[in-house]
Amino acid sequence: MKTYSFTGGRPSPEDFPVEGLIDATARVLRRRGTDLIAYPHMVDQHGELAQVAATRFQNGERAGSSCIPLPVEEIIITGGSNMAIEELARFLTQPGDTVLTEELSYMGSLGRFRNLGLEIEGIPVHPHDGMDVQTLEQTLRDLAARGVTPKFIYTIANYQNPTGAILTLERRKRLLELAGQYGTLIVEDDCYGDVHFEPPLPPPALYELSGGSVPVVYIGSFSKIIGPGLRLGYMCVPPELAEIKDRGIANKASGLASLIVAEYLRDHLAEHLARHNEVLMGKRDVLLAALEGELGGFASWNRPRGGLFSWIKLPEETDLDQLEALAAEHG
Amino acid sequence: MKTYSFTGGRPSPEDFPVEGLIDATARVLRRRGTDLIAYPHMVDQHGELAQVAATRFQNGERAGSSCIPLPVEEIIITGGSNMAIEELARFLTQPGDTVLTEELSYMGSLGRFRNLGLEIEGIPVHPHDGMDVQTLEQTLRDLAARGVTPKFIYTIANYQNPTGAILTLERRKRLLELAGQYGTLIVEDDCYGDVHFEPPLPPPALYELSGGSVPVVYIGSFSKIIGPGLRLGYMCVPPELAEIKDRGIANKASGLASLIVAEYLRDHLAEHLARHNEVLMGKRDVLLAALEGELGGFASWNRPRGGLFSWIKLPEETDLDQLEALAAEHG
Repeated sequence: MKTYSFTGGRPSPEDFPVEGLIDATARVLRRRGTDLIAYPHMVDQHGELAQVAATRFQNGERAGSSCIPLPVEEIIITGGSNMAIEELARFLTQPGDTVLTEELSYMGSLGRFRNLGLEIEGIPVHPHDGMDVQTLEQTLRDLAARGVTPKFIYTIANYQNPTGAILTLERRKRLLELAGQYGTLIVEDDCYGDVHFEPPLPPPALYELSGGSVPVVYIGSFSKIIGPGLRLGYMCVPPELAEIKDRGIANKASGLASLIVAEYLRDHLAEHLARHNEVLMGKRDVLLAALEGELGGFASWNRPRGGLFSWIKLPEETDLDQLEALAAEHG
Repeated sequence: MKTYSFTGGRPSPEDFPVEGLIDATARVLRRRGTDLIAYPHMVDQHGELAQVAATRFQNGERAGSSCIPLPVEEIIITGGSNMAIEELARFLTQPGDTVLTEELSYMGSLGRFRNLGLEIEGIPVHPHDGMDVQTLEQTLRDLAARGVTPKFIYTIANYQNPTGAILTLERRKRLLELAGQYGTLIVEDDCYGDVHFEPPLPPPALYELSGGSVPVVYIGSFSKIIGPGLRLGYMCVPPELAEIKDRGIANKASGLASLIVAEYLRDHLAEHLARHNEVLMGKRDVLLAALEGELGGFASWNRPRGGLFSWIKLPEETDLDQLEALAAEHG
């Protein structure tokens, strides 16, 4: 029996760039391989990938959005976006501190926050429009009344995990206002931000919209456009948090992996994303057709314009244990 | 002016295996590249490198020492041995806890312990024979009298950084006895352990000697035999600490880098080490000849049988500021 796993968001193996990475390795190791005898912070090995991350917003993939480039000197390459989230949370919090997240969110981030002993306040998330900013305001007000300032608001504004929601422009603006009003940092996890299928593009990133008026940490990833096995992501921190750069974070990501991926993406980013997103969109269409055929008129779901998730709402009376058993039986 | 930097321990660029790694990349990505669409803990990407680490003691490099193999299922691949040390210290300690180290030790480890708010008690280290176990005993006794049990004793038993010392067999045995007596874990950082120049080999590892009677964490690295830019190391934890495996540590090292390096070393470990150590021994000999020619009868130093460090003892009255200025002037 062929089985289909819906337990995590993975890129497609069909378009994993085996030959592209092999060619890139040959070029970059002949050019810069011997730099790897040093630590990444002593002989820079992440600058080329930081450049790729910085120019990602400038080369047409995001045409149409009022985007600003990420300042390359503020980009820290990390061992996946998970490491960015963990190091940031370690840097910003003490056990017992409060953080806000979407009520449904990426299990990996929630688990990290719990491991650090943080109090997580979940804000409801609408499956199309994202975080409920009215409840956010109420929560911030209630916390302030108790003398609590959340250390940060963690949000996946684009193609949210697990709902697929795209935070609307209006809600983005309101989120920024509230963060400014209550003195709270925003952590914007944009790891699905490059996986677009069709217009319109999501609104500009919170990082872009803030223009520095409210501190926003922007987190990106190469996991969703190539694969998590690279363990390469990045974060762009506002000047207020520049001290985090002294914590040796950039020295934790592999220089070997970083040089190879930078060499590949520098020449192939646009074509890679076009192919990659086309493959994923094809899978989305298969999923939507199957949902329509099997669950039409019975359940509801969103039609993702990007990312790796769709949120299916089943009737309240559904017996989830039985559903799970039946699904397992049918692969 | 040609300058020579003695500020850190680096492998030689001359024998960085550019072509070997390129060939390995082509083979392993064609065979297993698509596994990289998953996280290393979901579709294993570190098992091959763990196998290389486990068999390292079995294939002749260490012939002559009464070694035991590392159990492959207890090896955790990390983003360099630095990450092993940091994650271990985070797992084992709270701020204010006490740890013991050699009085002179690797700055990277000391800095990490300080960042975690640990109290570091330094034990004097003899430049040939390693940690002074008599002072160690006195320190453990004094701490016990104050109700303090150190969380661990961190030691670089082979080719110590910065002294080059090799902990004698007798001292190793005494260290194990004391750790057992005072209920303290040993953290054995063997990152230079593969860099041998000439016989005799160092005594067996503390991990090997303990035979499980005293808990020892063994830490190894691929930084000193290929380069720190790989960001690949490993630790082998005793069963008492197995819970550390659930902290997601193995998910932080790059699967891409891990697969490439495993593919290269599986076929080339012995020849790579032979060439690598020959190049480094040549550099050692140049250094020793220069010391003899320039400082003979004036300063003293050890003649390292391996590793990356020699400890030079200058006359007490040496003006170090002037020495530094003169050295800089002459490159």
